Amino acid sequence: MSPHAHRVPDAPGGGLREFDLIRRYFDRGPTRRAALGIGDDCALLAPATGCDLAVSTDMLVAGTHFFEDTDPEALGHKALAVNLSDLAAMGARPLAFTLALALPRPDEAWLGAFSRGLFALADRHGCELVGGDTTRGPLNVCITVFGEVPNGAALRRDHAEPGDDLWLSGCTGEAAYALRCRLQGRPLAAGDPAQLRLDRPEPRVALGLFLRHLARAAIDVSDGLLGDLAHVCRRSRVGAEIDAASVPMPAALRALPPGDALRLALAGGDDYELLFTAAPENRAALAACALPHGLTRIGRIVPGEDVRVLDARGARIDIDVGGYEHFGA
Amino acid sequence: MSPHAHRVPDAPGGGLREFDLIRRYFDRGPTRRAALGIGDDCALLAPATGCDLAVSTDMLVAGTHFFEDTDPEALGHKALAVNLSDLAAMGARPLAFTLALALPRPDEAWLGAFSRGLFALADRHGCELVGGDTTRGPLNVCITVFGEVPNGAALRRDHAEPGDDLWLSGCTGEAAYALRCRLQGRPLAAGDPAQLRLDRPEPRVALGLFLRHLARAAIDVSDGLLGDLAHVCRRSRVGAEIDAASVPMPAALRALPPGDALRLALAGGDDYELLFTAAPENRAALAACALPHGLTRIGRIVPGEDVRVLDARGARIDIDVGGYEHFGA
Repeated sequence: MSPHAHRVPDAPGGGLREFDLIRRYFDRGPTRRAALGIGDDCALLAPATGCDLAVSTDMLVAGTHFFEDTDPEALGHKALAVNLSDLAAMGARPLAFTLALALPRPDEAWLGAFSRGLFALADRHGCELVGGDTTRGPLNVCITVFGEVPNGAALRRDHAEPGDDLWLSGCTGEAAYALRCRLQGRPLAAGDPAQLRLDRPEPRVALGLFLRHLARAAIDVSDGLLGDLAHVCRRSRVGAEIDAASVPMPAALRALPPGDALRLALAGGDDYELLFTAAPENRAALAACALPHGLTRIGRIVPGEDVRVLDARGARIDIDVGGYEHFGA
Repeated sequence: MSPHAHRVPDAPGGGLREFDLIRRYFDRGPTRRAALGIGDDCALLAPATGCDLAVSTDMLVAGTHFFEDTDPEALGHKALAVNLSDLAAMGARPLAFTLALALPRPDEAWLGAFSRGLFALADRHGCELVGGDTTRGPLNVCITVFGEVPNGAALRRDHAEPGDDLWLSGCTGEAAYALRCRLQGRPLAAGDPAQLRLDRPEPRVALGLFLRHLARAAIDVSDGLLGDLAHVCRRSRVGAEIDAASVPMPAALRALPPGDALRLALAGGDDYELLFTAAPENRAALAACALPHGLTRIGRIVPGEDVRVLDARGARIDIDVGGYEHFGA
């Protein structure tokens, strides 16, 4: 963590020196991959020869991205997961991350649980904490993550071409459904699969690496499938069509009215699946993907600039993407 | 910036889509040095061959590190300056940065001024914004900065050796004095040199590059000179002595009682000068430093682990480093 102790005018006597204790939960000794880790003015990273360093930052704010009473272990997991998902969408291999954390007060139980969730995920992906900052303030978690990707191999948003297939990993809509249940006062059980999608999303890191030579453009689905697809289309200057009947529907959504379920799946957000385009000649290779989450071909890239959802007869379905309430990250 | 629009349960109808406007103030088109900048899931950085990437993160929180009513242009400057100061302390050349920004509400006047202050400093140091995140929340600015340093050339905290001279760039104490004046209800004028030290610190980037082959260990003085020197000593397993009479005293402090002035200079904080150690054979080269801020030899590294301040007769002076109220960054 940063060496800087923080003190505020209303906390004389070095009140924020207490925040030094936070380091206890985050400094795990010498780094394995980084040239220099926690404890100096900067960390030193040395990406492998022939690789670019992929960098992404996400800030999660209490009350905006998560409930104040969120289980800190789940928050530690999710704060890193949403960043690893950005690496996955670029086809980058996780390398390291920094953590900046503002807390209203030093709370050892909270820090212990938060760091457990954080490091359990980090260790699974070989991603090491190399530095950061801890301070007093309204609860805020800002992670910057670093990954390696061979020069020119990154999956970008601006490479989709008309004629590409449109693919989705896993399925979408469960996290938004779990959030809606909570907002309506009938929260799902902590172990419910839909609740786990909201609380502990699994970044598709291995899939991102697998796609390096098979996909043309990719994005992670964090803000709702249609909204994220629109980002790809805008940057690639293309349009897209989604076949509504082909959109995978998770179990939690099957009891809902079909229009409602479709809207959750296409506009719900907080999914952290990968949405990508690929040339039709790669269909067999993609269908053979042995990763533990299926890939579904849900549509195609077309000329133009519109993103359309089509019913079985090819007629356009209007989806209201603006009306949803969701956490975004 | 991040592609993710953020929406909260209490802001239905895509309320946080307004935050998209923030991009207007930060997206300045194609990058010059980075392989890929704002607008994808990740930015792509390609450090020069033979260089490590130096990384530092600092989070500035309203009410903890700055007053809520701080001039946003000065805040934009300072948020980047404190990060560039960390690069300077490693001898790293600024390359790029990411910005994560939480704002209570989108405020175009605030954003315009903040981005002006930010980019004026960034441009002077050739440091480009490559990505980030904007969201609703209590005011919080988290910058992660990247710099290049040739493999093995970084100025580290753990390389000080007994017999080294101890050097300080410029002088310390003015920022703490300006903060004290404000807290005592008699703020300095905005253009007062001491107030400028608090509001618009100048990171010693050129000095850091100059020191690569002359200094042995270095740190930036952000938390008070004695506290930061203690970090160097702890990591290098050495002690240090400071000659009180040699500590440079800025004009603003000369009218104060000598003990008070010395305490501000040695424990005040928020200075962003460089404190470094160097072998005695480098004295002439360091004294010839043509950079526009002097270097002063203020003491020496000794065996042991104590950091001591000595008077003209070699007797120890006790400095209370805990009692000060200051902003740290």
